[in-house]
Amino acid sequence: MTDVLRELGAVLEQRKNSASPDESYVAKLHHKGLNRILEKVGEECTETLIAAKDAERSGDNNELIAETADLWFHSLVMLSHQGEGPEAVLNELARRFDLSGLEEKARRTKDY
Amino acid sequence: MTDVLRELGAVLEQRKNSASPDESYVAKLHHKGLNRILEKVGEECTETLIAAKDAERSGDNNELIAETADLWFHSLVMLSHQGEGPEAVLNELARRFDLSGLEEKARRTKDY
Amino acid sequence: MTDVLRELGAVLEQRKNSASPDESYVAKLHHKGLNRILEKVGEECTETLIAAKDAERSGDNNELIAETADLWFHSLVMLSHQGEGPEAVLNELARRFDLSGLEEKARRTKDY
Amino acid sequence: MTDVLRELGAVLEQRKNSASPDESYVAKLHHKGLNRILEKVGEECTETLIAAKDAERSGDNNELIAETADLWFHSLVMLSHQGEGPEAVLNELARRFDLSGLEEKARRTKDY
Repeated sequence: MTDVLRELGAVLEQRKNSASPDESYVAKLHHKGLNRILEKVGEECTETLIAAKDAERSGDNNELIAETADLWFHSLVMLSHQGEGPEAVLNELARRFDLSGLEEKARRTKDY
Repeated sequence: MTDVLRELGAVLEQRKNSASPDESYVAKLHHKGLNRILEKVGEECTETLIAAKDAERSGDNNELIAETADLWFHSLVMLSHQGEGPEAVLNELARRFDLSGLEEKARRTKDY
Repeated sequence: MTDVLRELGAVLEQRKNSASPDESYVAKLHHKGLNRILEKVGEECTETLIAAKDAERSGDNNELIAETADLWFHSLVMLSHQGEGPEAVLNELARRFDLSGLEEKARRTKDY
Repeated sequence: MTDVLRELGAVLEQRKNSASPDESYVAKLHHKGLNRILEKVGEECTETLIAAKDAERSGDNNELIAETADLWFHSLVMLSHQGEGPEAVLNELARRFDLSGLEEKARRTKDY
C-alpha cells in the first residue's frame, strides 16, 4: 500500500500542470478554481457520512470505502491547488503520532 | 512517507481494542459510537473548508494541512469502527488510478 | 415576511403528493429518496460556508443569502420527506426562545 | 407560526449588540468571529444528516426537528454577523416561489 499516495500525488501534479481541461477531470477542477474543488470536498464528505450510516445498518462497507476514497482524492486535489502534496498531510500525521515516517521523532503534544 | 498510514492504522487498531476510554481519545470515540465519530468527520471537513478559504487569502497553508490531517485521521477512526483499515481506501485509489500499489492492474473505469 | 414559510410548506406538500417526477424538481428529489435529498442539504451547506467566507472578504452578501435560501429550502424538502412541515422547526425555535409563537411559554432550558 | 423568525431575528440583533460575551451564547459566538460561527453551521448540518438517517430507520423525527432548528438558528447567527436578518432569506424564497410575501410578484426563473 505504501507508494499509492506518492504516485497519486505525482499523477495529480502532472494533470494540474499539463492536461487540458477538456481531457482531464482534475485539470477541469483546477480550471474552475478553489471554490469548485471545495464544493466537491464537502459533497464527498456528505456522501461519506450517508454511506457510513448505511454501512452501520447493512454491514456492507463497499460504498463507505469508495466514498472515503473520493473524499481523500478531492482533498488531495485541494492541496495540489494550494501547491501541497500528500506528504504534507502524512508528515503532519507522523509528527502527531510519533511514527517512523519522520527522521526526528517529535514528542506528541496531544494524547490521541 | 510510505509507511505512515500503515503504522497509523496499526496504532488505531490497537487503541480500539485495548485502551480504556479514560486513557485514549480514540478509545473514547469508539466508546461513544459511530454517530460521535461521524460528527467529528463532518466537523473536521468544515474546518478544512474554512482553512482552505483562509489559505487562499493568506497564502499560508499550515492550518489547511493540519485540518486535512484531522479529517483523514477521523475518517480512519470511522473506517476502523467499521472494521476497515487504511489499505481499503488506498487499494481503491490504486485501482482507480492504475497505480503500482496493486499486483494486478485493473483498467480504469473513469478518466480522472 | 410572515407567511412565506407556511406557503412554501404547502407548495412542497402539494408537489410531493401530486406532481410527476418529470415535471417538478421537488417530486424528482422525493422519487430519488432520502439519501439524494440529504446529499443536496450537505451540498448547499458547503456552498453556504464558501459564500460566507467570500462575503466576509467582499462585503457582498447576495450569494450568501441565496445559498442560505437553498439550504433552508432543501432542509424543508428533507422534513417533508419525513412527513414534517416548517412549523415543526418554528415551534421548536419558539419553545427555546420563549417567543410568542407558542400559547404556553415554556421556560428556556438553555441560555442562548 | 408566522412571527417566530421575525421575533428571533430581533432577539439575535439585540444580543449581538448589547449582551456581554460572558452572559450570552450568541454574543460569545459573535465575539469569536465568523469562522467559529461557520464551524457551528457545519457541525449542525452534520448532526442534521445523521439525525435524518436515524429518523429514516426509527420513524421518530424529534431529533431531526431539533437538529434542523439548530441549523437554522446558527445560520441566522451567521447572517446577523454579516448584517442580514431572516427576512433576506424569506424574501429570496418568496421571490423564487412566487409567494405572497412579496408585494410585486416576480416571475419564477427556475421551475422548482
